Amino acid sequence: MKTITKMQIKTTAHEAFEAFIDPKKIGNFWFSSSSERWQEGKTIRLRYEEYNAEGEIQVIELIQDQKIVFKWGKEHTVSITFNPQEQNSTLVEVVEEGFVVSEEDLIAQLIDNKEGWVFMLTCLKGYLEFGINELRGGLVH
Amino acid sequence: MKTITKMQIKTTAHEAFEAFIDPKKIGNFWFSSSSERWQEGKTIRLRYEEYNAEGEIQVIELIQDQKIVFKWGKEHTVSITFNPQEQNSTLVEVVEEGFVVSEEDLIAQLIDNKEGWVFMLTCLKGYLEFGINELRGGLVH
Repeated sequence: MKTITKMQIKTTAHEAFEAFIDPKKIGNFWFSSSSERWQEGKTIRLRYEEYNAEGEIQVIELIQDQKIVFKWGKEHTVSITFNPQEQNSTLVEVVEEGFVVSEEDLIAQLIDNKEGWVFMLTCLKGYLEFGINELRGGLVH
Repeated sequence: MKTITKMQIKTTAHEAFEAFIDPKKIGNFWFSSSSERWQEGKTIRLRYEEYNAEGEIQVIELIQDQKIVFKWGKEHTVSITFNPQEQNSTLVEVVEEGFVVSEEDLIAQLIDNKEGWVFMLTCLKGYLEFGINELRGGLVH
């Protein structure tokens, strides 16, 4: 079982890709910090200053300006793809796989997961299109 | 079964409330148009120009600057509440009820519903805090 979330962003695939892997940029729309530049095979520590929370991801695959695949949490795999569209626009698509159908709170897991990705991608759009980095703290769970 | 989505917005409850019920404002963050000012007992026609789609809502309850309740779709009830916080901030909370547990596509309904509310509330935040009205077209379903 998986979630799929897609956002059209008026920017290049390069700019959208770099926003994730460049530790100077991620704090504008998602985690407040990232321990280093994402690279294939690296373990990256992501921090959410606002919630005093940290977590790790394992970067499985990186194709510059095209695709990011990482593992996190309970053996979940996240694939982020960057598909160039007309007029210098990019479709950013996030797929998270690994949800276990037999788990009692499956529905809550899927809904929370969808919530997180929609929010992050909308914050990314606000950042890349308008330079706004203050949307990301707004969602209350 | 229901979905609950909450967003902290740096604006007054009055401004957040008016963004929904004033037909001159809704097009900045949600539907492209609303047939008239929302009032208790009225049926309002909402239009999504981008998808050439229209729908109606029945406004059940309006408490100025505090609460909006309407019905739409398959006997679903939506309650939007505006809770003033410190520092001129408002917590906008959307609860949608009426999901039928026995329906085969329940999980997809809940996930799609959550997607819509998170996206709308983030666009509302962008509009009310930064005057941006161009986030709303970005989500691809």
